[in-house]
Amino acid sequence: MKTIETVAEMVQLAKAWRKDGKRVGLVPTMGYLHQGHLSLVAAARLDSDIVVMSIFVNPTQFGPNEDYAAYPRDLEHDQALAEGAGVDYLFAPQPGDMYPKGYSTFVNVEGVTDYLCGAKRPGHFRGVATVVSKLFHIVQPEKAYFGQKDGQQVAVLRRMVADLNMPVEIIARPIVREADGVALSSRNVYLSAEQRQQAVVLSQGLAKARDLFIQGERDGEALKQVVTDTIQSASLAKIDYVQLVDNLTMAPVDRIAGEAMLAVAVYFGETRLIDNVLLAIESE
Amino acid sequence: MKTIETVAEMVQLAKAWRKDGKRVGLVPTMGYLHQGHLSLVAAARLDSDIVVMSIFVNPTQFGPNEDYAAYPRDLEHDQALAEGAGVDYLFAPQPGDMYPKGYSTFVNVEGVTDYLCGAKRPGHFRGVATVVSKLFHIVQPEKAYFGQKDGQQVAVLRRMVADLNMPVEIIARPIVREADGVALSSRNVYLSAEQRQQAVVLSQGLAKARDLFIQGERDGEALKQVVTDTIQSASLAKIDYVQLVDNLTMAPVDRIAGEAMLAVAVYFGETRLIDNVLLAIESE
Repeated sequence: MKTIETVAEMVQLAKAWRKDGKRVGLVPTMGYLHQGHLSLVAAARLDSDIVVMSIFVNPTQFGPNEDYAAYPRDLEHDQALAEGAGVDYLFAPQPGDMYPKGYSTFVNVEGVTDYLCGAKRPGHFRGVATVVSKLFHIVQPEKAYFGQKDGQQVAVLRRMVADLNMPVEIIARPIVREADGVALSSRNVYLSAEQRQQAVVLSQGLAKARDLFIQGERDGEALKQVVTDTIQSASLAKIDYVQLVDNLTMAPVDRIAGEAMLAVAVYFGETRLIDNVLLAIESE
Repeated sequence: MKTIETVAEMVQLAKAWRKDGKRVGLVPTMGYLHQGHLSLVAAARLDSDIVVMSIFVNPTQFGPNEDYAAYPRDLEHDQALAEGAGVDYLFAPQPGDMYPKGYSTFVNVEGVTDYLCGAKRPGHFRGVATVVSKLFHIVQPEKAYFGQKDGQQVAVLRRMVADLNMPVEIIARPIVREADGVALSSRNVYLSAEQRQQAVVLSQGLAKARDLFIQGERDGEALKQVVTDTIQSASLAKIDYVQLVDNLTMAPVDRIAGEAMLAVAVYFGETRLIDNVLLAIESE
């Protein structure tokens, strides 16, 4: 595995791959890798001649009071994990190389960003869409792989790719969880032992709702209520949102008719965790 | 020459060209072609294996009170001119194909759009950046050709391409003028005979300023004043702006130090004409 540290070098490589007709798969990450990221690499490995992982803690997707400076970083450890998982090229640019002096272009995805984390974190998805747009132009992948844990991110990027006619396919992969059900996240490292123990209420609540759904429950309030009750049983949990939304538009739905996402964001102290489950009625 | 009417067909062609390593040159236009557009084709022809011209009157770059519906269109005549000039593929999609129901992604270039037409036409350059971004993804050209008449557009697109790392080179070509100096524009067709006669004051004023500049004048007010005086000598002309700006950032400058653009926008009745001249101090 080779680590590429500048945009210019990455552009040259991508140009050569394009000329040679290589199928490039891209796994964009902010680093501090876990099995969720590595499951994306495994999927990319199956589809691609060349697997590129980017590691870039993207400043434009953090709000002024968020954890950009504190976001966990460990490039050496990430390099070992990425290489072990089958990454060919690790692209780890510097912020000043991605956003040089005078930088002033942003990609805005409207509508789908009005809800959930988009409503709670103004500017977050503008930063995500912008940096992913840049990564797509730099690396020129055929396919790009994202975790379903950031379910709204997947919806935003699918909308962006379709609207701007980007020649990239967005592949979403299932959430990877710890043995007790907690969704893997680089931010789990912030949790105290007690918070970590209680964090299981997110996935437990969602699992209960999914069971209700499988038994035939279609009512949004009923499904959200069981999640809310479960989360509120944890003394350290503070709910940011519990929402049932259309999986394409992210707009709230009262009853499940097609494919919905039941999504939660919960604070444990300063740490904000998200999780979700897809509840889809199979069309026959 | 082949006319392509759907995005899907254009995407398939571009994919095949990419695979075959063809050098594709793109000339984006809104149609109603004149020699200015055809000079772009000539430039593209020299650099490219395949020359694509797009004709699309882009609704998102017109304000609510602007001339979208009235903008002149003549596809058959354009086809003849494009074929004669050496276009290989004419891409003429429908608005509903470019902006289907639910469309919601926009590219915003900040800063460079705060001045000149950007200040006078809110949302105009958002529409331009968005549609050009789409065209770049659909056609995947190596180079794209634009007229210097829309000088701010060139600056906006150069900023966009650099910021978003798009694998495209923006080529700006000189303004093409009528024998009397009037810059070619599809909107000239709106002018009455008398307005058309008086429209010569734009290029006459700019030419006088350029002469002063060559004689050593560097002061912005002096250069703008000669343009203003010349335009005001035309009874039907109403000045929208006369501005001296930095050619990269489009920010106003008081004195010319590097490369500046002296730009004007003038109304004749409802018709808004623009023109400009580059005033550059050669670095030694």
